[in-house]
Amino acid sequence: MKKIEHIGIAVHNLKASNELYEKLLGRPHYKVEEVDSEGVRTSFFQTGDSKIELLEASHPGSPVAKFLEKRGEGIHHIAFEVDDIRQEMKRLRDSGFQLLNDEPKMGADNKLVCFVHPKSAGGVLVELCQDAGP
Amino acid sequence: MKKIEHIGIAVHNLKASNELYEKLLGRPHYKVEEVDSEGVRTSFFQTGDSKIELLEASHPGSPVAKFLEKRGEGIHHIAFEVDDIRQEMKRLRDSGFQLLNDEPKMGADNKLVCFVHPKSAGGVLVELCQDAGP
Repeated sequence: MKKIEHIGIAVHNLKASNELYEKLLGRPHYKVEEVDSEGVRTSFFQTGDSKIELLEASHPGSPVAKFLEKRGEGIHHIAFEVDDIRQEMKRLRDSGFQLLNDEPKMGADNKLVCFVHPKSAGGVLVELCQDAGP
Repeated sequence: MKKIEHIGIAVHNLKASNELYEKLLGRPHYKVEEVDSEGVRTSFFQTGDSKIELLEASHPGSPVAKFLEKRGEGIHHIAFEVDDIRQEMKRLRDSGFQLLNDEPKMGADNKLVCFVHPKSAGGVLVELCQDAGP
């Protein structure tokens, strides 16, 4: 795990939350992206060497919609940058962590991603992400 | 807000969680510190330019004990590094955020800290922290 790549935060309304987080962080978001595979619309704020990723559910029943229903708005996951996602997935599997996908999949921001089940990681939804390259 | 200084994660048992997060992050914690004012024992892991701070309640009734009772283990707060905490507190207050303390107080890791109420910050407990110097 090289660094915190981003913190994912679940929000009800991306437009309203973009305004709120612009005030909080003192800078505007720099990108909006829809990730169909996850059922989310995302927006990104840079902060130091990491990002804040806001997540709005793009259809009911998506994981973020379920999170919002159960917990309300708030921190959804921590994503760590890795150099070699398959190697990190193997390392974690061998250490007893339960992965939510067997193979890396394409996430937001041109990343190969894999999630670790919060039940095996102290209640924290952990994402691994590796830059997918050009 | 300069960068993510750390992510605070509430845990039931610091010893067990130090072992878990050492496996997850691939490196050991580098420090344990008790913060009486917050009723927590903390441990720190470096990851890139930020830290993971594990938080164990040191007495029942402390904010972290209440969080664990209500939500279980998981992400508790995001802390952002600031250069001038009083100036950031004024900026946030003027922007409509509700601060949990009127004056900065001493937190873990030799930092002056102030918390922003999650109700005014999209369900996220936000901490500002400024290095307290020598």
